[in-house]
Amino acid sequence: MDTNEKSLALHKEKKGKISVESKVAINTREDLALAYTPGVAEPCRKIAEDVTEAYTYTSKGNLVAIVTDGTAVLGLGDIGPEAAMPVMEGKAILFKEFADVDAFPISLDTKDVDEIVRTVRYLAPTFGGINLEDISSPRCFEIEKQLDALLSIPVFHDDQHGTAIVVVAGILNSLRLVGKRIEDIKVVLNGPGAAGTAIINMLMEMGIEKAVICDEYGILAENREAPMDEHKKILAQKSNPQNVNGDLSDAMKGADVFIGVSVGGIVTKEMVQLMNDDAIIFAMANPVPEIMYEEAKEAGARIVGTGRSDFPNQINNVLAFPGIFKGALSVRATTINKEMKVAAAQAIADMISEEELSEEYIIPDALNKAVAEQVTQYVAQAARDTGVSSI
Amino acid sequence: MDTNEKSLALHKEKKGKISVESKVAINTREDLALAYTPGVAEPCRKIAEDVTEAYTYTSKGNLVAIVTDGTAVLGLGDIGPEAAMPVMEGKAILFKEFADVDAFPISLDTKDVDEIVRTVRYLAPTFGGINLEDISSPRCFEIEKQLDALLSIPVFHDDQHGTAIVVVAGILNSLRLVGKRIEDIKVVLNGPGAAGTAIINMLMEMGIEKAVICDEYGILAENREAPMDEHKKILAQKSNPQNVNGDLSDAMKGADVFIGVSVGGIVTKEMVQLMNDDAIIFAMANPVPEIMYEEAKEAGARIVGTGRSDFPNQINNVLAFPGIFKGALSVRATTINKEMKVAAAQAIADMISEEELSEEYIIPDALNKAVAEQVTQYVAQAARDTGVSSI
Repeated sequence: MDTNEKSLALHKEKKGKISVESKVAINTREDLALAYTPGVAEPCRKIAEDVTEAYTYTSKGNLVAIVTDGTAVLGLGDIGPEAAMPVMEGKAILFKEFADVDAFPISLDTKDVDEIVRTVRYLAPTFGGINLEDISSPRCFEIEKQLDALLSIPVFHDDQHGTAIVVVAGILNSLRLVGKRIEDIKVVLNGPGAAGTAIINMLMEMGIEKAVICDEYGILAENREAPMDEHKKILAQKSNPQNVNGDLSDAMKGADVFIGVSVGGIVTKEMVQLMNDDAIIFAMANPVPEIMYEEAKEAGARIVGTGRSDFPNQINNVLAFPGIFKGALSVRATTINKEMKVAAAQAIADMISEEELSEEYIIPDALNKAVAEQVTQYVAQAARDTGVSSI
Repeated sequence: MDTNEKSLALHKEKKGKISVESKVAINTREDLALAYTPGVAEPCRKIAEDVTEAYTYTSKGNLVAIVTDGTAVLGLGDIGPEAAMPVMEGKAILFKEFADVDAFPISLDTKDVDEIVRTVRYLAPTFGGINLEDISSPRCFEIEKQLDALLSIPVFHDDQHGTAIVVVAGILNSLRLVGKRIEDIKVVLNGPGAAGTAIINMLMEMGIEKAVICDEYGILAENREAPMDEHKKILAQKSNPQNVNGDLSDAMKGADVFIGVSVGGIVTKEMVQLMNDDAIIFAMANPVPEIMYEEAKEAGARIVGTGRSDFPNQINNVLAFPGIFKGALSVRATTINKEMKVAAAQAIADMISEEELSEEYIIPDALNKAVAEQVTQYVAQAARDTGVSSI
């Protein structure tokens, strides 16, 4: 059986991957009286008096909703809420396995931005945090922004920030290895969707001055002839005030870092050869990267990362989201701010010591569960330092 | 420590009563490839092709949402969504412990009927059934009705039907013991809220002809002077076409069964003495029944049931809801119809054999987990017989 067949068989045998378990056995009259009526009235009363006591007496403080509308699932696109469920359940079990966070999938039967915002707002009391997942761009930006403003619990769109955090971790370690400073490098980002936008925003917040953003029509520029939606116009203003026009090859000239969250095979060896020495490439299109690992190396790239587990330097969100939520929940953070995201990237980067760091090892292994623990610590500290923790 | 203090300590120690667990360990690259990417794309594709495959490849088929707006929690009333959570989690663990159903609490931050309906409709794809809980009357009737019409999965307001089913089970066994027929008896129902309304509707569907419904102002009658909302008017039309007026004492004259879902202590010994021979009393106000067990017996009642575990014949919803959902889920019923509810009541009643049946044992013990299994079987059969099963 190949991976697909094995995966089908596994999902069928288990009938889904999550279960809701009781932490309390119910066998005696006293069990029932304490966990249910009449005893349960007492924690209810305590929370009615002070709503923050929900963190003391219920599961809220360790409970994350994974919310999708099924519009941007893996590379499959808009497959609907039911078909998104295997991914949502997969996400839930990664939360559990990597950070002991209880996460529950909620697949919504609406694609309307306002309805999604309203629905999540209404169901929020149960949860300590909201992980948005697989919601198509640019709708995802508005949904996250509105929910973050409405809710006093953290809201985090993993496809944006989870990816950005791991890429930034990879860039931090790459720069450490090649001896360049973040202020000096030129970065080319291809594919300004959910992840691409978050990556470039995070890098610019961290001090990158030369960023060039490309889509399928070339460099984003306000004055170009190719289509530019509102979202791309804002990115063009931020990254390209001088209205430079050109294609991806033009963008690659003198670049230090290429980041692809676009489509497989669109970066050629020639393009890599246009880059500066010690070129760093994160080609994350799945399953076929923008340029294959070997090909990029042959063209002279020094460091290459992809989304694949069969090459070195896999960019995998599982390095970020379990620890980010665990850290935010551990201090009851009201939001996940940029300092917490940067701290998460630093935590991931710091997992690799000076001695261990190499061209083939700039990102910790996706299965290294110690990463989530370090991310938790760094994120909690950043939340405290920036005054968004509630305890 | 008393029960309240012990319950608080338990809830605090466990930090809530539910956890979301993974059915699949993630330790190796292959684990990750099968449960998450890239393998997970395959079950996603299968469900995208045929949405019913969600029952094959996800947890949907055994997953129930327990939905509340926190407006009618225990005897505490409108305490809000967060304060309702200990009860919701308690319900979830009873589902698990009694029927191995995965149930997840969703406490909603809105009391608006339309918004609740919309929210539940949107979050339904994740679930195989919806258990409405602790939503105040008469709003609960409209919410259940609308959701049942909108959704193709079962929707069941437990405070109504769960209670009704267990009371009906008790009445069936009581009549068996005293040798009366359901068509012949006169029933007095005091407290036409969520549970009371469901009880009287269920009994009338089962053939009871003489039903008298009382509220705090006396017998429901369209022409009475005391306040009558729309909901009570409908009940008055159904039960009292001759517009008989009177108070609870008047109602009790010649009654065979009294059912109280109202307030403690309002039934006197004198009222019980107005009833027919072999009087049957279900006094379910909590924690103080409409009349105490001993008092009712002293006044001549033959069978007395209450909501309390410290007297015989405890009416406890846990006898019904786990098996009802398990039965409905097991045949992918699209609804929980009246035949399935009657079957559940019969299943509970049938747990007690002719030999075992006595005045002190007309309802099985709340902790008897074999009840849920029998309810499951009867409900599944009734769903098949009435053509609402999908498999």
